[in-house]
Amino acid sequence: MQTFLSSATTTVKINTDGPMVIIGEKINPTGHKRLAEALQGGDFDYVRELAARQVAAGADVLDVNVGVLGLDEVALLTQAVKVVTSEVNVPVCLDSANPEALATALAAVPGKPLVNSVNGKEASLQAVLPVVKDRGAAVIGLTMDDHGIPKDAETRLAIAGKILERAAKVGIPAEDVIIDPLVLSMGVDTTAGAVTLRAIELIRQEFGVNINLGASNVSFGLPERQVINQAFLALAAGAGASCVITDPMKLAMAVRAIDLLLGRDAYARRYITYFRAHAKEGPASH
Amino acid sequence: MQTFLSSATTTVKINTDGPMVIIGEKINPTGHKRLAEALQGGDFDYVRELAARQVAAGADVLDVNVGVLGLDEVALLTQAVKVVTSEVNVPVCLDSANPEALATALAAVPGKPLVNSVNGKEASLQAVLPVVKDRGAAVIGLTMDDHGIPKDAETRLAIAGKILERAAKVGIPAEDVIIDPLVLSMGVDTTAGAVTLRAIELIRQEFGVNINLGASNVSFGLPERQVINQAFLALAAGAGASCVITDPMKLAMAVRAIDLLLGRDAYARRYITYFRAHAKEGPASH
Repeated sequence: MQTFLSSATTTVKINTDGPMVIIGEKINPTGHKRLAEALQGGDFDYVRELAARQVAAGADVLDVNVGVLGLDEVALLTQAVKVVTSEVNVPVCLDSANPEALATALAAVPGKPLVNSVNGKEASLQAVLPVVKDRGAAVIGLTMDDHGIPKDAETRLAIAGKILERAAKVGIPAEDVIIDPLVLSMGVDTTAGAVTLRAIELIRQEFGVNINLGASNVSFGLPERQVINQAFLALAAGAGASCVITDPMKLAMAVRAIDLLLGRDAYARRYITYFRAHAKEGPASH
Repeated sequence: MQTFLSSATTTVKINTDGPMVIIGEKINPTGHKRLAEALQGGDFDYVRELAARQVAAGADVLDVNVGVLGLDEVALLTQAVKVVTSEVNVPVCLDSANPEALATALAAVPGKPLVNSVNGKEASLQAVLPVVKDRGAAVIGLTMDDHGIPKDAETRLAIAGKILERAAKVGIPAEDVIIDPLVLSMGVDTTAGAVTLRAIELIRQEFGVNINLGASNVSFGLPERQVINQAFLALAAGAGASCVITDPMKLAMAVRAIDLLLGRDAYARRYITYFRAHAKEGPASH
């Protein structure tokens, strides 16, 4: 199955058979003090810089989140999206839980963006899906609902089914819904990775849709996070994930390696090209 | 399925459901000049050092290969194995294509060792399997035959079947045959990783045996080998490999991360313990 996103002039195809699509996560003020302060000051230079750096580092799509307590998200999301789309030519992923902010920003952005996110909560389904449908956008569906994030893979599968069904009802086709089976931190519950991997397999098998992964949370609270994140990405790709929200500066090389290993990179062209453009100086990477 | 190996006093269980078992590969003079010279000089101090370092770094089993052109492998393998088993208390994996060297060394080693390797060539099957059976050892079966290493996964599956059948005929049970589906270098053929991953899936599905992986060769000739090797290990483990011949100094942390992600490390005990014992100083690993 294929999900198409676009900017003003370019199209990104997310294919269930890969190669993996990277959604850059860095434009998000959560735990990112410098960005929060810049947004508070109405200064978008840093947003611009984060956009350019992530695209240079291999991001195919950019997530844009401007949620800072006390700021007007409706105005700010639109401003930020305009800044990003004037700086780089990749599709954007509008990251907000505020339907009004989403609707306003969706109207301001060219092409076909992605919305991050809807989930299985009744309020979310009712508020977000119509906005996505009206704009002809695609949407990420998180497998959580009014009871929270299920501990088990089977309930996450059921929520994915519910989101797909409700999306279909308002006229959003399955190819425009990317399911994110969510991953909790293994620092809190060490079975979290395995549950998410199982959910990926089940959802892929049952619905055949594109699956997104937030690839950093899994290692929160544990040492050597990069080693865990890389291994998780590989396991998730092997299980059927086709898309990842992550820091391309840290994980794009690993994504290229995974695509190469899965036979999706003829003559290693993308791998070698990426390496040549981004090879780190200094000690060999671990 | 479970393969049991033992040293004089310890047992190692290789289980198809994991956790991954690490066979340390460093006692091998191929491309390792210092070791080749030490063996030529009859000096075993470096063998001793490599044995101790690998076990400290997380090796569960040690591969012992002393193939140096011009040296008497029959005498040398036995000497080396005695040195290794006097230095560390893990099962050994006798790595030789010489049946006489294998038979002699097998007689000198305590416990239940592993033999590396038999393959689908008629000469290999006839020479190696009886020696393995006589000693009650386990054996690694490489999926190659008189036509070389097959380009496709299906033929490797067929060779695995042949090895298992021939082993059964001389009285070696399937649990004492660990199949290695081989991996060629992606530097030569960029589909090599994908073919091996497919072979792992097929062999695991069809025969349910333990599967071993040589995890370094895949990246030969490519840059950022560590990134590729780590991703390959994760994909292979996800596909069903339960055992890896590798450099534990480089990949044991990744193996621990994979087991944790696959839900095989309750409370992350092994991961954290390994990290505490081996955390690198200096810049965070990549």
